[in-house]
Amino acid sequence: MARPTPLSGFPEWLPDARVVEQHILDTLRRTFELHGFAGIETRAVEPLDQLLRKGETSKEVYVLSRLQEDGSGGDRADKQLGLHFDLTVPFARYVLENAGRLTFPFKRHQIQKVWRGERPQDGRFREFVQADIDVVGAGELPYHYEVELPLVMAEALGALREIGVPEVRVLVNNRRVAEGFYRGIGLEDVDGVLRNIDKIDKIGPERVAQLLVDECGATAEQAQACLDLAAIHGADTTVVDRVRALAASHGVESALLDQGLSELGALITAASRRAPGVVVADLKIARGLDYYTGSVYETVLVGHEELGSICSGGRYDTLASDGANTYPGVGLSIGVSRLVSRLVGAGLVAATRSVPAAVLVAVTDEESRAQSDEVALALRARGIPCDVAPAAAKFGKQIRYADRRGIPFVWFPGRDELADDGSTTRGADQVKDIRSGEQSSAESASWSPPAEDLWPRVVPAAQ
Amino acid sequence: MARPTPLSGFPEWLPDARVVEQHILDTLRRTFELHGFAGIETRAVEPLDQLLRKGETSKEVYVLSRLQEDGSGGDRADKQLGLHFDLTVPFARYVLENAGRLTFPFKRHQIQKVWRGERPQDGRFREFVQADIDVVGAGELPYHYEVELPLVMAEALGALREIGVPEVRVLVNNRRVAEGFYRGIGLEDVDGVLRNIDKIDKIGPERVAQLLVDECGATAEQAQACLDLAAIHGADTTVVDRVRALAASHGVESALLDQGLSELGALITAASRRAPGVVVADLKIARGLDYYTGSVYETVLVGHEELGSICSGGRYDTLASDGANTYPGVGLSIGVSRLVSRLVGAGLVAATRSVPAAVLVAVTDEESRAQSDEVALALRARGIPCDVAPAAAKFGKQIRYADRRGIPFVWFPGRDELADDGSTTRGADQVKDIRSGEQSSAESASWSPPAEDLWPRVVPAAQ
Repeated sequence: MARPTPLSGFPEWLPDARVVEQHILDTLRRTFELHGFAGIETRAVEPLDQLLRKGETSKEVYVLSRLQEDGSGGDRADKQLGLHFDLTVPFARYVLENAGRLTFPFKRHQIQKVWRGERPQDGRFREFVQADIDVVGAGELPYHYEVELPLVMAEALGALREIGVPEVRVLVNNRRVAEGFYRGIGLEDVDGVLRNIDKIDKIGPERVAQLLVDECGATAEQAQACLDLAAIHGADTTVVDRVRALAASHGVESALLDQGLSELGALITAASRRAPGVVVADLKIARGLDYYTGSVYETVLVGHEELGSICSGGRYDTLASDGANTYPGVGLSIGVSRLVSRLVGAGLVAATRSVPAAVLVAVTDEESRAQSDEVALALRARGIPCDVAPAAAKFGKQIRYADRRGIPFVWFPGRDELADDGSTTRGADQVKDIRSGEQSSAESASWSPPAEDLWPRVVPAAQ
Repeated sequence: MARPTPLSGFPEWLPDARVVEQHILDTLRRTFELHGFAGIETRAVEPLDQLLRKGETSKEVYVLSRLQEDGSGGDRADKQLGLHFDLTVPFARYVLENAGRLTFPFKRHQIQKVWRGERPQDGRFREFVQADIDVVGAGELPYHYEVELPLVMAEALGALREIGVPEVRVLVNNRRVAEGFYRGIGLEDVDGVLRNIDKIDKIGPERVAQLLVDECGATAEQAQACLDLAAIHGADTTVVDRVRALAASHGVESALLDQGLSELGALITAASRRAPGVVVADLKIARGLDYYTGSVYETVLVGHEELGSICSGGRYDTLASDGANTYPGVGLSIGVSRLVSRLVGAGLVAATRSVPAAVLVAVTDEESRAQSDEVALALRARGIPCDVAPAAAKFGKQIRYADRRGIPFVWFPGRDELADDGSTTRGADQVKDIRSGEQSSAESASWSPPAEDLWPRVVPAAQ
């Protein structure tokens, strides 16, 4: 077998980068669980007809086939399956399937890989990890969850600042504001306007204005009003006043707009109290997906805005429906692979070592390997990760084995020594900090490494 | 959308069973890391030609196609991809791809889902989680790893006994013993004999003997000798003596057999010292896969032997090779989904609750929700998972919300009270253990639940 090469779009990490990713996943999970979100996983596949309900995503689905379809009937009866491209569609299906066995409002987190059948030359990830939180209600879902969920994500991402993750900014908007405003100035193609407003950062306001005229039947004045709304942003409730003033200047009167502004104001007020400066209202945030009905969220890394949103979501009045019942929800999703890729690629964070072991127990000779194993057993029983040298090589070579892996301590089991009277005594074990060269006697029943050396840590990289 | 039904072969867990699975995964990972295994993940897909190198598995592969192949050339140049059916093939590829950036011997653990394109009516899992450990060397790999790896797995599974997982028995054999013996009695089709010996538990020794005669060119006497070898088992080194005696009675002289017996004896000796009674030599363990070259392992749950092996593996002299270098390895794989399915299905284990929250903070009225949020903030800052009531319903309803989720404590924020002189004072917060009904004053800056209530635990189920 020739040396294989990576597959474009399918990122894999070396052990040290995997330490970074695992730390991030553990930190996210802990924050989610502190907030009461139960962890679930769903299968990787869904029936293709479910995945294709949103027409826009059809190009991105990987379809599965069994290599040897046997025509025995079992397959024909079986639905065609595809890999899920997000965690929202599977979650909606899980809620419907298990509605009778769940308690609502149901708060869940879900951390899994998703797949998108992108063209290989696009340079996009075709497999990546998402970390989602959602709250879903049966029939109704109070507005306060729209305030809480972005704050949970801000806290989860904020907990990563100590490892060197840049500050985040959560940009929020409310679909009701946009829809109330657009309809109030006489534009009925709300989805069309939103889709184009979403392109402002990519193609600039002038071209968006032209698209609004060409595609959405706007007059030049209506298009300008949309751009004026999109230009409003800020971290305090004066944003609400500015939208109101703009609406008044166009003679807009809309209950929908009023409700949206009241919600947006509540979100900004609560956020500025609980996480000052983190949440910013930004009226140009539109989110392409048309199932959002209330708050929408995007999140950028400060100083890395060109990376785009690393955590997005919103409120949907109908996450799922089985005819008899409707399940509204609100949720956000972190693109973990994109985050890890940037953190590692830009050298922002680093693992203190690539292996778990804090200690390498040296082996004096193969006959005494059992003695080294006993030391390792005693250390592990006290929660100290360790490795035993692969071979009884010269100690210099064993120390290099530890050094190459970043293992900070090497343990030398005591040797039997022959006394003058013919008796043997076991010399004391020694442990060496190979960074400082410091060496001292130690007992495996009591010695511990400093807490900061116990497990690999993730730290801001030296710039 | 009608209520969806489960897909056969794709298990999913409700939140309480997911607590069990997550606990098992966390426990396995911790044990693996205490032993110095670095965690990695590989992508879910491999080029189809790599997956099909072992002819036997071809029926089980799920092949991917993009829904809308566009014929632009990008796809034609792209290799056809399939979902991995185990973690060994991807690991071998990862080792070759990254050989220059890894340090050998390389110890890794890998916990991921795998997929098998089984016929839907077979009732087998088509998606399941595996937890693997392997050590791989560059050019050589000392025998002592063949002793250590099954002991790591025994320790990992043993750490689950406190939650109610039954005792495990690791059954070990050595391919060299079998091959040396078969060749010594004049049978050359070693793979064929092994494949049939592997069927003893399924079809019985008589039919295996017939197959050895029909398919492997054995005489009745040779077939009987193979069955006699397969019948030998035991937890101490008398097993080695019994094999030697059997070989001698057939006049077998084989250096390969001697090496195998010496290795098997070392494994049993070390195992009986480090984990008495856990490892048993069983000469009928054959493992179907033909790449094993030394030790082979299977693991059964005592009392659930009919479940088959839940943790299997062995030594392979050529895990991977790129022409210039060969990478021998030894590893084992736990079938986590099968284990969880049995534990939950047979009611052996249970989660103390299905949600992370230890405390539900009640909401007196929506105007004072911020006060409840502050309590939750203070508790979470001290690592106490909590949830805030979804609505300011009557307290009885809020208590039922907690009760239905198994949340043990409900917190009532103090209310403002009007004194005779017109001033208001804030009454003390109260916390209620809803299991006992006991209620007392508490401060969110200092109160903690008992340690056993802090997080959901997994415990042996009441039988």
